[in-house]
Amino acid sequence: MVFTKEEYNSRLTAIKQQMSKKALDILIITDPSNMNYTTGYDGWSFYVPQGVIIALDHEEPIWFGRMQDSKGAKVTTFLKEENILGYPEDLIQSPPRHPYDYITDFLNSKNWANKNIGVEMDSYYYSAECHARLMDQCPNATFHDAHLLINWIRYIKSDNEIKYMKDASILVQLGMQRAYDSIKPGVRQNQVAGNIQQSLLSGKDEMGGEYSGLNIILASGVSASASHLTPTDKKFKENEGTIIELGGVKKRYHCALSRTVYIGKPDPKTNDTLKITNEGVERAIEKTKPGNTCHDVAVAFWDVLEKYGLEKDSRCGYSIGLGYPPDWGEHTLSIRKNDMTILQPNVTFHLMAGMWMDTWGLEISESIRVTENGCELFCDFPRSLHLI
Amino acid sequence: MVFTKEEYNSRLTAIKQQMSKKALDILIITDPSNMNYTTGYDGWSFYVPQGVIIALDHEEPIWFGRMQDSKGAKVTTFLKEENILGYPEDLIQSPPRHPYDYITDFLNSKNWANKNIGVEMDSYYYSAECHARLMDQCPNATFHDAHLLINWIRYIKSDNEIKYMKDASILVQLGMQRAYDSIKPGVRQNQVAGNIQQSLLSGKDEMGGEYSGLNIILASGVSASASHLTPTDKKFKENEGTIIELGGVKKRYHCALSRTVYIGKPDPKTNDTLKITNEGVERAIEKTKPGNTCHDVAVAFWDVLEKYGLEKDSRCGYSIGLGYPPDWGEHTLSIRKNDMTILQPNVTFHLMAGMWMDTWGLEISESIRVTENGCELFCDFPRSLHLI
Repeated sequence: MVFTKEEYNSRLTAIKQQMSKKALDILIITDPSNMNYTTGYDGWSFYVPQGVIIALDHEEPIWFGRMQDSKGAKVTTFLKEENILGYPEDLIQSPPRHPYDYITDFLNSKNWANKNIGVEMDSYYYSAECHARLMDQCPNATFHDAHLLINWIRYIKSDNEIKYMKDASILVQLGMQRAYDSIKPGVRQNQVAGNIQQSLLSGKDEMGGEYSGLNIILASGVSASASHLTPTDKKFKENEGTIIELGGVKKRYHCALSRTVYIGKPDPKTNDTLKITNEGVERAIEKTKPGNTCHDVAVAFWDVLEKYGLEKDSRCGYSIGLGYPPDWGEHTLSIRKNDMTILQPNVTFHLMAGMWMDTWGLEISESIRVTENGCELFCDFPRSLHLI
Repeated sequence: MVFTKEEYNSRLTAIKQQMSKKALDILIITDPSNMNYTTGYDGWSFYVPQGVIIALDHEEPIWFGRMQDSKGAKVTTFLKEENILGYPEDLIQSPPRHPYDYITDFLNSKNWANKNIGVEMDSYYYSAECHARLMDQCPNATFHDAHLLINWIRYIKSDNEIKYMKDASILVQLGMQRAYDSIKPGVRQNQVAGNIQQSLLSGKDEMGGEYSGLNIILASGVSASASHLTPTDKKFKENEGTIIELGGVKKRYHCALSRTVYIGKPDPKTNDTLKITNEGVERAIEKTKPGNTCHDVAVAFWDVLEKYGLEKDSRCGYSIGLGYPPDWGEHTLSIRKNDMTILQPNVTFHLMAGMWMDTWGLEISESIRVTENGCELFCDFPRSLHLI
């Protein structure tokens, strides 16, 4: 058990309160992060349909998934066996049959198919087909969009969740240091990525890490002008900058960190842009405290950029914490102008200053926890351009 | 360019032929593998809505995605700039707005919103919300399920695709050997996983690898009774078996390999079950040749299991090749009884004998190419129980 039964119970209570408020009898969850949050389930089985059903009139959540993965649910969740549903193998990737045929049968058998049912319309792995099967086969149900209902409950972290993110911060700093130590002219990008992964996963002392919701982002030269390219056979070379974005992960909780490396003597535009970006990051951190909004933090960041005539169209941050591929972001707050979400103690976000220019780029980021009076950084890692 | 323009063109021709056959004017793709197959696009950006539009009356595919990722499309695809559409940042994770509002505007602007439009109803990252936006905002379009249309074109690999899978086979064998060399009593699972990742990514000589569609599966003891658990801080110990499932990846093409390791002297049930499983794997390989069906291969495998009274409910294989998280499977053939798909030269699949028992488990697998007269294994790696 990753958290106490009490912590899972308090999560469930908060969810059921929200369900009542929104007049939902049933909630069907498919986002693997929300499945983990409500049951502890942890397995790389989200490539087939699976989910968790929460019903106001049923005490425990109900896990459903492929029969062979139900053993993983027994190993990783606190659920009673009666609340673990494995659907038959012959529904796997054999259209026209589909695993949701089983789910709709189950809903009908429980007399839940004529209820108000919340579904996560825009969550990962809730395909158009899953939704179409539910609507077709439960014609007396009323479906409501409950996307982000649980994510907003996850918005404020418990101290136990923060502890895992602090563990993750140790891992991500090991990974970034390994990157710094490995990058040399003539070395392949994927050799460096291999070293980074070794550090992120092996960790140190008694603690190692896990696969990340977002893979290692590492790109050099013109490829650093794009935000999400990944390591290749390309070799590092002189007079090129490299962006590196990494996640340390403990019990599925993430700490992200981005830095920029340059081999040789950086040109003035790289140096200047990094200085300006760092000034923006510092102003944003100063504005991060309870009661301020995401908008306030964004204004502080962009005021600096605008002072120097620098442009950046994309947001400069988002909530971070519990995650599975393809993301470590929690899809609640964004650090951008007009996001009026109010910061509160134990809100955590990734302040991400990615400057993707015409033919080059740089990245500086920090994972941040809002404290009672201000904020603290998860990592203690210099933000300067790292020179090789 | 990962493939020649001619190869991309021939793929597009085959897709447009299928579209004509099914009376589709427009095809909207969201599976990242299919996006890569049609355009070469390669980036970890599938955590936000993105896709490729193919229109019978438009020569090139059209990539769409977040504005900041459009630079990645310029770097990795062969598309003309006019066929790369970046949608504005303020649509990112800011409901009630949604990126598909932009896509429906685009379809309307091209006069495509009253056409027959194919969508991949059950593909990864095509959420219920994406589909609802399309239907609401293109009320004069007729939507058809085109799920797997492209996957079935991918069913037979080109020689160039096979070459990348052979590169991937070198990587996955390095990874498995590293696992064998690293597992010792008292070592943490994630230390071994770190070493494995280093080998999978760093590769050797001039070639390294990429992140896999399926993460490292590694589980010991009772956790090996489940199919998809991943490495933790748990330490290896005497008299326990460990299942390991790995993927080598080159240019997004996968070669998978599973083996079982035992520390100490294995009990008779582990030894016997492994021998039976290996006999089944051998019979299945013998039946793998053009003209035979997946059913034929499955019968050969299960005949052995039944002879010895062993049960296995889950399929024992599936098509493999091009993939992105969460999967390396291609969702076409399955090796199971009554799958009457006919094998043909350059069909590739992962013959996966996972035996997940009550309180323990074992795995043996091979990635296989169907040849002109039979088949060949991508790897040359002993299938015996590896003893530490």
